[in-house]
Amino acid sequence: MDYEFDRGIVVEPTGPGEYSAHLDAGWVVGGGVNGGYALAVIGNAIRAQLSADGQPDPVSVSAYYLSPTAPGPAVVRVRRLRTGGRRSTVAASLVQRHEDQEVERITALAVYGDLDRMPTEVQRQIPPPELPPLEDCVDARQAPEEVRRIAPLLERFGTRLDPAYVGWAIGKPSGSGIIQGWFKLADDRPLDPIALLMVVDALPPVTFDLGLPGWAPTLELTAHVRARPAAGWAIVRHATRTISGGQFEEDCEVWDSAGHLVAQSRQLALLPRPSAEAAQA
Amino acid sequence: MDYEFDRGIVVEPTGPGEYSAHLDAGWVVGGGVNGGYALAVIGNAIRAQLSADGQPDPVSVSAYYLSPTAPGPAVVRVRRLRTGGRRSTVAASLVQRHEDQEVERITALAVYGDLDRMPTEVQRQIPPPELPPLEDCVDARQAPEEVRRIAPLLERFGTRLDPAYVGWAIGKPSGSGIIQGWFKLADDRPLDPIALLMVVDALPPVTFDLGLPGWAPTLELTAHVRARPAAGWAIVRHATRTISGGQFEEDCEVWDSAGHLVAQSRQLALLPRPSAEAAQA
Repeated sequence: MDYEFDRGIVVEPTGPGEYSAHLDAGWVVGGGVNGGYALAVIGNAIRAQLSADGQPDPVSVSAYYLSPTAPGPAVVRVRRLRTGGRRSTVAASLVQRHEDQEVERITALAVYGDLDRMPTEVQRQIPPPELPPLEDCVDARQAPEEVRRIAPLLERFGTRLDPAYVGWAIGKPSGSGIIQGWFKLADDRPLDPIALLMVVDALPPVTFDLGLPGWAPTLELTAHVRARPAAGWAIVRHATRTISGGQFEEDCEVWDSAGHLVAQSRQLALLPRPSAEAAQA
Repeated sequence: MDYEFDRGIVVEPTGPGEYSAHLDAGWVVGGGVNGGYALAVIGNAIRAQLSADGQPDPVSVSAYYLSPTAPGPAVVRVRRLRTGGRRSTVAASLVQRHEDQEVERITALAVYGDLDRMPTEVQRQIPPPELPPLEDCVDARQAPEEVRRIAPLLERFGTRLDPAYVGWAIGKPSGSGIIQGWFKLADDRPLDPIALLMVVDALPPVTFDLGLPGWAPTLELTAHVRARPAAGWAIVRHATRTISGGQFEEDCEVWDSAGHLVAQSRQLALLPRPSAEAAQA
């Protein structure tokens, strides 16, 4: 099958541990490329590097965002730090050319392994939220025309948001600091461990639900992929519990259609400000 | 004042971005040096590198543990990735010589800034747990002689554990997956942002409270330092909510004596196994 997400994360080897990629403009949100999509591109390059070792799956990925990523060509460099029998650790970096200079956009550390070789037992897990049925949830693609213009990203998803936390779309945020809903890709491309790196940063920021619209630049995002997701609608929940010092943490959990927790992430982000000042500093 | 922790984290510049350190045997637990203490040593080297820029404080640090750290000499290398007006991002690495080879023990990414220049407003935060008064909590230094022998680390702390979650010490774990209590250093060295990097990994693993004694090797630990801590007893809480695939996440929160959330961390660790097999793979 020819899916949009797969075309968007293609990497081609260009040297030892080096891969070229092309970041698709369809994944832009606001001024840059979505951080989760960019992370999936990095994740796919690491996968290319480690698949021959039988360790194709992200287990833990920590990304530090250095400068806004732009649509267009990019290079991902992967450097092995530790090669083990069950899991390996790498450093990876996504760079782009800007005004004739190479600029680092995202730097990451990651542990990869083989999710199919890990024990299947689930001793305990965070339970998924109770969501209204799909037909009672809000399709994010119904956003106003002006929103969709600055967030072509929305067209990539079949997200159905829980109506309890979408009041921000009509100027009535719930104030809970929660965004949650059903998730799938618009073209029904099945989720897999690499796609989960994108899913954990796919919903609108929880600051929307706090009445703080605008860009919330991510300083750091760590994702743990806990299991290979089953096909079908996933459930995604984002929440923040600590807003202080001009920053907030955004915790995300993803459950697959079988109700298993398949990914967790936490990011530290800057509260949106009226100007773009904070992001540049 | 001459405090034990300060002696333990001393770094001496030995070249551009390079610092020598000596990991103190007093911070050993089981077969290696405590991961939080080692992280504080790395954090102190980054602090040395960035203090001249007026960015002495860790904001976010992600550490990937590559091989067990041993007491003795170590070298920390710090490489700048992004220098900004308010915050900078670095990569750092702690290496040791082993059998005439240099071995990387821990690799890390970090954002540093100046906590005193961040807004002081706290819009919301995770509330601290209700703990019994100090005198009703359990001093971890009262552990049996055989425990203290393999964990000299315990002598460094004045930890007082909540008795609701110390049943594991007498073979009756609560099964909650929680360890919490009052925290200070044994010699009353005040906590600061660098010390918080140690505090988030200072209590026994939550797996003890699940009836799973033994070493739980950390794959990855990310700590966010949210504010400079006030002097006095801190409250530390560790909890796990997802145990699957032979792994668990351990979330930690630290509140200072004024009740402010000053640090948060999450680590992904391997469940203890009867043999050391898992850690080597």
